[in-house]
Amino acid sequence: MSDGDTPARSLGGRFDEATDAILHRINRSVPVDQRLWREDIGGSHTHARMLAKVGLITEADRDALWQGLDAVHAEFEAGTFLFQEADEDIHMAVERRLGELVGEPARRLHTGRSRNDQVMTDTLLWLRGAIAGLHGHLSDVVDTLLVRAEEGLDTVMPGFTHSQPAQVSSVAHWLLAHADEATDHLRRLADLHRRIDASPLGSGANAGSFLPLDRETTAANLGFDRPSGNSIASTGSRMALLDAVGVCAMIGTSLSRLGEELVWWSSPQFRWIRLPDRLTTGSSLLPHKRNPDGAELIRGQGKVLPAEFAAMAATMAALPTGYSKDLQHDKAILFRAMDGCRDAVVLTGAHVAALSWDAERLRAACVPQLGALWLADRLVLAGMPFRTAHHLVGAVVRMAGEGSLVDGLEAVSIEHAVPDLEAIHAELTALTPEAMLTGLKTAGSAAPDQVRLQIDALRVRRDATRLGHAED
Amino acid sequence: MSDGDTPARSLGGRFDEATDAILHRINRSVPVDQRLWREDIGGSHTHARMLAKVGLITEADRDALWQGLDAVHAEFEAGTFLFQEADEDIHMAVERRLGELVGEPARRLHTGRSRNDQVMTDTLLWLRGAIAGLHGHLSDVVDTLLVRAEEGLDTVMPGFTHSQPAQVSSVAHWLLAHADEATDHLRRLADLHRRIDASPLGSGANAGSFLPLDRETTAANLGFDRPSGNSIASTGSRMALLDAVGVCAMIGTSLSRLGEELVWWSSPQFRWIRLPDRLTTGSSLLPHKRNPDGAELIRGQGKVLPAEFAAMAATMAALPTGYSKDLQHDKAILFRAMDGCRDAVVLTGAHVAALSWDAERLRAACVPQLGALWLADRLVLAGMPFRTAHHLVGAVVRMAGEGSLVDGLEAVSIEHAVPDLEAIHAELTALTPEAMLTGLKTAGSAAPDQVRLQIDALRVRRDATRLGHAED
Amino acid sequence: MSDGDTPARSLGGRFDEATDAILHRINRSVPVDQRLWREDIGGSHTHARMLAKVGLITEADRDALWQGLDAVHAEFEAGTFLFQEADEDIHMAVERRLGELVGEPARRLHTGRSRNDQVMTDTLLWLRGAIAGLHGHLSDVVDTLLVRAEEGLDTVMPGFTHSQPAQVSSVAHWLLAHADEATDHLRRLADLHRRIDASPLGSGANAGSFLPLDRETTAANLGFDRPSGNSIASTGSRMALLDAVGVCAMIGTSLSRLGEELVWWSSPQFRWIRLPDRLTTGSSLLPHKRNPDGAELIRGQGKVLPAEFAAMAATMAALPTGYSKDLQHDKAILFRAMDGCRDAVVLTGAHVAALSWDAERLRAACVPQLGALWLADRLVLAGMPFRTAHHLVGAVVRMAGEGSLVDGLEAVSIEHAVPDLEAIHAELTALTPEAMLTGLKTAGSAAPDQVRLQIDALRVRRDATRLGHAED
Amino acid sequence: MSDGDTPARSLGGRFDEATDAILHRINRSVPVDQRLWREDIGGSHTHARMLAKVGLITEADRDALWQGLDAVHAEFEAGTFLFQEADEDIHMAVERRLGELVGEPARRLHTGRSRNDQVMTDTLLWLRGAIAGLHGHLSDVVDTLLVRAEEGLDTVMPGFTHSQPAQVSSVAHWLLAHADEATDHLRRLADLHRRIDASPLGSGANAGSFLPLDRETTAANLGFDRPSGNSIASTGSRMALLDAVGVCAMIGTSLSRLGEELVWWSSPQFRWIRLPDRLTTGSSLLPHKRNPDGAELIRGQGKVLPAEFAAMAATMAALPTGYSKDLQHDKAILFRAMDGCRDAVVLTGAHVAALSWDAERLRAACVPQLGALWLADRLVLAGMPFRTAHHLVGAVVRMAGEGSLVDGLEAVSIEHAVPDLEAIHAELTALTPEAMLTGLKTAGSAAPDQVRLQIDALRVRRDATRLGHAED
Repeated sequence: MSDGDTPARSLGGRFDEATDAILHRINRSVPVDQRLWREDIGGSHTHARMLAKVGLITEADRDALWQGLDAVHAEFEAGTFLFQEADEDIHMAVERRLGELVGEPARRLHTGRSRNDQVMTDTLLWLRGAIAGLHGHLSDVVDTLLVRAEEGLDTVMPGFTHSQPAQVSSVAHWLLAHADEATDHLRRLADLHRRIDASPLGSGANAGSFLPLDRETTAANLGFDRPSGNSIASTGSRMALLDAVGVCAMIGTSLSRLGEELVWWSSPQFRWIRLPDRLTTGSSLLPHKRNPDGAELIRGQGKVLPAEFAAMAATMAALPTGYSKDLQHDKAILFRAMDGCRDAVVLTGAHVAALSWDAERLRAACVPQLGALWLADRLVLAGMPFRTAHHLVGAVVRMAGEGSLVDGLEAVSIEHAVPDLEAIHAELTALTPEAMLTGLKTAGSAAPDQVRLQIDALRVRRDATRLGHAED
Repeated sequence: MSDGDTPARSLGGRFDEATDAILHRINRSVPVDQRLWREDIGGSHTHARMLAKVGLITEADRDALWQGLDAVHAEFEAGTFLFQEADEDIHMAVERRLGELVGEPARRLHTGRSRNDQVMTDTLLWLRGAIAGLHGHLSDVVDTLLVRAEEGLDTVMPGFTHSQPAQVSSVAHWLLAHADEATDHLRRLADLHRRIDASPLGSGANAGSFLPLDRETTAANLGFDRPSGNSIASTGSRMALLDAVGVCAMIGTSLSRLGEELVWWSSPQFRWIRLPDRLTTGSSLLPHKRNPDGAELIRGQGKVLPAEFAAMAATMAALPTGYSKDLQHDKAILFRAMDGCRDAVVLTGAHVAALSWDAERLRAACVPQLGALWLADRLVLAGMPFRTAHHLVGAVVRMAGEGSLVDGLEAVSIEHAVPDLEAIHAELTALTPEAMLTGLKTAGSAAPDQVRLQIDALRVRRDATRLGHAED
Repeated sequence: MSDGDTPARSLGGRFDEATDAILHRINRSVPVDQRLWREDIGGSHTHARMLAKVGLITEADRDALWQGLDAVHAEFEAGTFLFQEADEDIHMAVERRLGELVGEPARRLHTGRSRNDQVMTDTLLWLRGAIAGLHGHLSDVVDTLLVRAEEGLDTVMPGFTHSQPAQVSSVAHWLLAHADEATDHLRRLADLHRRIDASPLGSGANAGSFLPLDRETTAANLGFDRPSGNSIASTGSRMALLDAVGVCAMIGTSLSRLGEELVWWSSPQFRWIRLPDRLTTGSSLLPHKRNPDGAELIRGQGKVLPAEFAAMAATMAALPTGYSKDLQHDKAILFRAMDGCRDAVVLTGAHVAALSWDAERLRAACVPQLGALWLADRLVLAGMPFRTAHHLVGAVVRMAGEGSLVDGLEAVSIEHAVPDLEAIHAELTALTPEAMLTGLKTAGSAAPDQVRLQIDALRVRRDATRLGHAED
Repeated sequence: MSDGDTPARSLGGRFDEATDAILHRINRSVPVDQRLWREDIGGSHTHARMLAKVGLITEADRDALWQGLDAVHAEFEAGTFLFQEADEDIHMAVERRLGELVGEPARRLHTGRSRNDQVMTDTLLWLRGAIAGLHGHLSDVVDTLLVRAEEGLDTVMPGFTHSQPAQVSSVAHWLLAHADEATDHLRRLADLHRRIDASPLGSGANAGSFLPLDRETTAANLGFDRPSGNSIASTGSRMALLDAVGVCAMIGTSLSRLGEELVWWSSPQFRWIRLPDRLTTGSSLLPHKRNPDGAELIRGQGKVLPAEFAAMAATMAALPTGYSKDLQHDKAILFRAMDGCRDAVVLTGAHVAALSWDAERLRAACVPQLGALWLADRLVLAGMPFRTAHHLVGAVVRMAGEGSLVDGLEAVSIEHAVPDLEAIHAELTALTPEAMLTGLKTAGSAAPDQVRLQIDALRVRRDATRLGHAED
């Protein structure tokens, strides 16, 4: 800025006073939005090219701007860029520095542009990259889950409902519960990425520009499918950000469930799984501790993400449609959510890759009562109405206590009700957890052959979520 | 139930005591989930057909079940269905009544089915319908916005940023800010609807069934594209519900912004728009009042919806993957969110259709300072760097006070800086709000020809979000 | 209403049209606020008394109103009160019915009153009662926790951090963790109750009344300490409701933690505690199931309550100070939060009272490694710096594996570092879980004598939270 | 750390592997908790004093520790303290540095202490200070509101409900709506501050210590009223933090409402108030802009705070009672909430102090219809039932349109209904906004004499919230 601007009042000749110090401090977004330097410089590069193309600046100006922007870029990369206290935001900081480097052409860069369209352009460019990155990390987690599942196809473990053993299941089937839901999230990420298809650049402050800007060209050069539509919505809405934070919140919710399982299942009472030393930490006081901090951090981070959705919605809530300064909070929330989600995803991948399971303990946890559904279904196949079978097996379980269902079956007099009781008795006597696993018949069940089909299907579904854009 | 079950302990011979009264009261979900009766009966119809097809029940049983289900359906339709205190949920209530009506075949209906897969089937069926309904209502609002926009293409009004006049805009352009965002929501709804493509029926309690259920057939008969994959995820996740509530929250956030505008813009200080008497209400104390309650309810409902997302996420947070009873809260939240969103959408449509605007007051609100960007851009076209023009026009505005920018321009000595100052002076003198509107050049701007293009584009985009399923 | 009012337009001669059906439906709050009938009638009773006292109505009018209000009260109690479709809210319904019963005097009841102050009076009266009720239920839970703790003073169990055994603790100490936090909540409830000390009645719609109302008298008669101050805040704020929902959210968060422990600790891998049959439920499919639904409902309800705080805050967010219709959502949220919190508290009490613990399994879970801190502290007492002791005991634990620390100690050569190693060796050899429990020295620790002191202190602290108001 | 620890595995001899890089990065809390350096050093100072007092360290060790802690303190103050990558958190960083400075005594500092009690001690010390600071800032805002109110006692303005003029009010009455609610918040802050009365120091990791720590002494030396009770709750709960964030959320919600009013009432359509240049900012594109960014930031920050409450609750939700690593998110949330709330409060004070109002425009906004309640109440005083008066005045308003109510009164034939119609007619003709203001009779109303009483009462109430602790 020149023309005698005070640092704190760079934007024009309209004001009598400098900005109040407290307002300047709270208003200043550099600590948060400096992270957008790469996108800001890239957007300016594209903008300058377009300005020259439509004749609003000369090619010499454009070349000077490009040279200057490259120099600023280099300073950021080298970590030598120096912000000044008067820099309100990343946009003004870059333009200020550009002015120091190339002089007058810098005063032409903001032609036909407002910070309102500029910041949305920067943010959406950043967000597309961050979504692509998150998609990649989560896709890796799905891969890892599927590979680990292949190792555990035949390893029986109890399937839980209400945190109580429900049916004989397998390690593979448990891992696939997470892989299945994660693949749905990949689909959400792909849908989300596809919906961020419009370039806000050229929307101006609110209603467009009197200058003949070529928005098609900047949109294409920035990798968008089209220029955005209505200029008010383009600059005053943060709905794409809310959308993204919503997907992070959904991913986080899923991961918190895996975190919970990792924590409990590695506890001494379970010891179903074991995490390697490198994924546990010690205590400052208790010398024997070996804590699953990573799993807890996955769970904790996952649980917090939905609050970021509420925060982002609150920034927009009940604002009139044009840009309002309330929206300034958007980026801190977005960065926290995207970073936190990515961290949780990456940490999850490390855990899934490294955990081992104790097949013997898992098998031992397949308590006799898990035969109850087998017995009920067997009675159904023998012709008994399911409700009758359910009631009868309940009595069998009660008589058996923690012992074998065979004992229970003998204690309950049901000869009259079941034609082939002798055969059932023999089958039940011979019933192993492995037999219960392989005896499952339905698509989506824990039976190894079904799980194998599901693994194949998930690989196909995951591939169908691939993002189409080159830049990511 | 027979076999001497106490009412409060219908599920089997496993227990020594009746359920505690306080647990029974809080556990009982009939007050909420009775709303799913139609889907529950429909799902049972389909399930019975499949059971007969694979030979698990006879055709006679199936016909008896169908007859009974039709009778129960008729009772619900007629409002004569009587719940009993012992009915834990809609599923047990329907099955109990069915037993009263058809006897033993009712004891065979639950063969190969758990309430865990049953309730998810019911809920997803309901949700698909509700999403389709919401999509329809919101699509109607978009239509109305576009029709009203066509009426206001040439009606100038100030475009606001920071709730301060920013540029000359138009009524059409303002309405399109809402139409544009609503069309994005239609896209979200269509993506969401498409993602709810898998039938949970046949997933069992947790790990599948020992019976040869045909899940492909039930999925197809219920209008799903496929049976769901992993049976743990199918019964223990509520992610599709969270996804839906998230879209409701996004829609609500948008509507809260329109509500805010309707409230303020119909206040006496603005009187930009007027709502008809039928959309306002009176005061119990103040005889003169004419309050925009509808607009306030839109705003209030919209603001609350993101909290429902947080609530739904909290129900799932950090649960192990199989079904846990914490998930029981899901339906109350889902119904509130879907109902509240639909109400806000429908009420919005009524307001958009009925509001009138005061073109004279809107024009008068286009204060002289709105020429500032025109003047700056005009100076740019005359060769001045934008930053110089911005600074100079700031001074012009300051000199002009609330008067004409022409006076300000005369007070600022800039002859040296602008070659064709005389022409600019003349153009500025003749500048009307209408000229500023039509002078906008960019795609997405408020210029009437651009708005017309946007209206056409939004109609195309809206049509592209059509849902593909016949049942909706 | 008379004077030819249409039902849907009862409030005055100001309007040309009836209210739109969709607005009437969404605006109508009877389904939610009918719950306030008792407070509404009580407030009107008090209001009528004051009107007569200051001469705004005659004593005959007052008596007629009282008679009529008693009759309406009796109808509500008997369940015979009939709402009409045109009744907008509980206030208009009561006044409408009163008019049918007593004629003209009913037209004088609303003198000097607005629904804005009326509804806040009703709501705060209800809320004070609900807080008192919640305080009573939670106080009962604290009692139960303390009584059960006295049973478990000497019963060792592992104290967990990171869901891993950390130290030898006791059942009493665990229960006191909950009692301590619950007592803090009682204090919050008492502070909250004390802060709801001002009667809004007489604040009018927004700025007060031209009539000589005696607000001191109505405040005293309703049991408040004072009339509220500023009439705008009295009618346009819902901060007391947000405050109350915040305390519910805090209570819920605590309860969700106990729910989590009840769920896991009653699972087969733990079997530390057992819930009686009457607090568990069965499965529709799996005959053997015995699920801790109550504990899960406590956890699930507790987790959802913070979202109600977000919802209540959202209703108020960014509204101008006078009453706006957005606030209509307040009561649905308040009722849900207070009801849900009360249910979770009551259900918690039932669980704490009924659970039993398995002292043998709890003792067996006190693994040898829990001696690590004992050993480190013992080495400190022998003069070793704590960090050195911590490091050394870490090595001891590692060498010991899952065996006795004595073995580990022997495997680590530390003679040089510890003067009285022989004594330590002997003490460690003899160390039992019970010895570790009683060896704890600090205030607030799990040592039985300390826990006994804490129980006494909590009884004193709980008594100090007693609510002071007679009406509760 | 010595003994050959790798930097990333400082805590003991228990582990075979270094911590995984990704876990170390996410687990490391230094970027957030370094802010607690002052409290951490202060707490260690107190801890060392107690250790010497009870004979666990020598006086020479204590003096060495004090000297070292002072040196570390000086490094932090000077900004020269260097964190190392291996420093997990502020506690380990301080202890590591202390070891470098004083050698062996540093290895004795952690005697009888865990990071679990240490971090809660640090955090509560910090929080008490932050609450006291916030209380001070908010108290200043109340002062400013009351002083400004005294300037505006007689300045009429419309009081709004539903964003529509409801009654004649005053600038003072409007400011007092905010002062009243803010004073309630001061009370909440005082209650909150009083509830944070217990020192966690000495609670150990989970169940207490085997060493004879004197917790009474450390509690007193740190300014607490007592040592905390149950050691599990003391180390595993974050309820005090949630409580604090809840009060921040309530304050924020109130401020968001003032922000909303500042934004709209300074807009051109209102111009009721004016903010000085130093509290407005410009636009990068629009040279004429003068935006109320400060007011928008108050509103935006206020709206976001309730989401921090949800986030804090989520970190604790459904955790078992002992410390879990999920709680690590607590400090980032707490700092954001306390900082954001303080910023919004301070910025609010600056706005209240600096805003000016336009008495003429405010008076002009007192439209004739605001006489409606006066007229209705006047008819009541003449003996007419209120409902009849309400209905009749509704018709008067309708006939009057935007003109004088006198015209309306003449157009409605009511001679039969009102005995002293002539007097009323004359009074109405002479009715000014000022007369309507001074004509208000009720406590809490906008009448200048009543507002004066309220100002006095608020000063008394504010003084009653003074915090009692010297350290603050």
